[in-house]
Amino acid sequence: MTEALTRDAFLDGRLMLWQPRDGYRAATDPVLLAAAVPAVAGARVLDLGCGVGAAGLCLATRVPGLEVHGLELQPLYADLARRNAAEAGLELTLHDGDLADPPASLRTLSFDHVISNPPYFAPGSPAASDPGRDRANRESATPLALWVDAALRRLRPGGRLTFIQRAERLPEILGALGTRAGHACVLPVTAREGRAAGRVIVTARKGGRGPFRLLAPLVMHDGARHLRDGADFSAAALAVLRDAAPLDLPESDAARR
Amino acid sequence: MTEALTRDAFLDGRLMLWQPRDGYRAATDPVLLAAAVPAVAGARVLDLGCGVGAAGLCLATRVPGLEVHGLELQPLYADLARRNAAEAGLELTLHDGDLADPPASLRTLSFDHVISNPPYFAPGSPAASDPGRDRANRESATPLALWVDAALRRLRPGGRLTFIQRAERLPEILGALGTRAGHACVLPVTAREGRAAGRVIVTARKGGRGPFRLLAPLVMHDGARHLRDGADFSAAALAVLRDAAPLDLPESDAARR
Repeated sequence: MTEALTRDAFLDGRLMLWQPRDGYRAATDPVLLAAAVPAVAGARVLDLGCGVGAAGLCLATRVPGLEVHGLELQPLYADLARRNAAEAGLELTLHDGDLADPPASLRTLSFDHVISNPPYFAPGSPAASDPGRDRANRESATPLALWVDAALRRLRPGGRLTFIQRAERLPEILGALGTRAGHACVLPVTAREGRAAGRVIVTARKGGRGPFRLLAPLVMHDGARHLRDGADFSAAALAVLRDAAPLDLPESDAARR
Repeated sequence: MTEALTRDAFLDGRLMLWQPRDGYRAATDPVLLAAAVPAVAGARVLDLGCGVGAAGLCLATRVPGLEVHGLELQPLYADLARRNAAEAGLELTLHDGDLADPPASLRTLSFDHVISNPPYFAPGSPAASDPGRDRANRESATPLALWVDAALRRLRPGGRLTFIQRAERLPEILGALGTRAGHACVLPVTAREGRAAGRVIVTARKGGRGPFRLLAPLVMHDGARHLRDGADFSAAALAVLRDAAPLDLPESDAARR
């Protein structure tokens, strides 16, 4: 089967990614996710449901010296992730398999960070037209709780989970974390000042006991309305999307200063 | 026993409230809570754990024609709530009793709105020094889930719950709502632009099925630091605290326009 592909620039062209022209396409979400991970050189990171590898490879681009792994169910995406890593000269260990039943190669490992951008589309949504998207739809039928479970299982004690997801699914994520993780911190991401959050970035530490924190939102666009795609990104958004700046999700106010 | 009392102005003096000089003292939180309740004339409202009646009486001041009830465990506070209502010329039906075992006078009623500002203090906190506060501490040992349960039990189907609480307890509230309420909506309240939320106002409809929404924060103070108490309230905060303006917690973006 021949798949139509595009090759797209991330982080101002520092990272180029092949991805299917149709189906799920990485855009800003995996870049924001990668920016929110406070990983340091030497850390082992797992990108759960990594697709073409956008989040993991953005993180590897920003932070040298990481050991980055990806788990992906769909061979088309997994193969593109391998190709994208090779062409970028980045190390990415791809595991083919299902998060509900991970391959043995993964089950023996534990991670400092598990990151994920679980599928957003609701099952049976009208956008479901191609096989890749159909598969993503079936995955989205997987309750978010299973994604959180899988992440917690692969984390070392004290390791950190970081998810990006539609804001309306925040209660599901928090419910799934329950008391198994602490220091949970939510960064709302909103298109414009004063708008409801479209996305949330959620981070928490396995076995942590610290309090929950709800941070001030990251506002992606300046001004009251949308002028043209990309024409009006805020300075904070540009720092992340173009300059690969980290997003700080502090566990306390002291950490922010 | 003689209790030292103060008489404090709320809503720019439209409402004067007697309260104990020591112990739990109503400040901005019950005013914000009352502002977030979209009650209209004729509606029946219950203020759960109403203290001296601040939230219910602020709401009754803003919206004439409501039938407002309060449930309070501590006789000192309940008596002050009765006195405050009488001196303000507002109708407030006080029920003495425990939310976990409400009096018969309350169990036969259902409400369009149930509002609450559950105690914030952690059990055994060093601030616990007087009997009133001790009692509030014992109440705070009551899990928030019991407050949410009690609110949902007293709501008619489609009725609306509105709580204000410390932001770090948001996961508990959302967990307690579970699938029994929908259209849940969170308004973060923050001291300053860019800071983590200190409070959250949470609203949800009993039996609703609509999606969760995380709104843009209400910023209470202008500028980067605290100059003097009350000296630098934001325009949005002043509108609520001084002019008794409502806070809009829309269930959809369309409702905001």
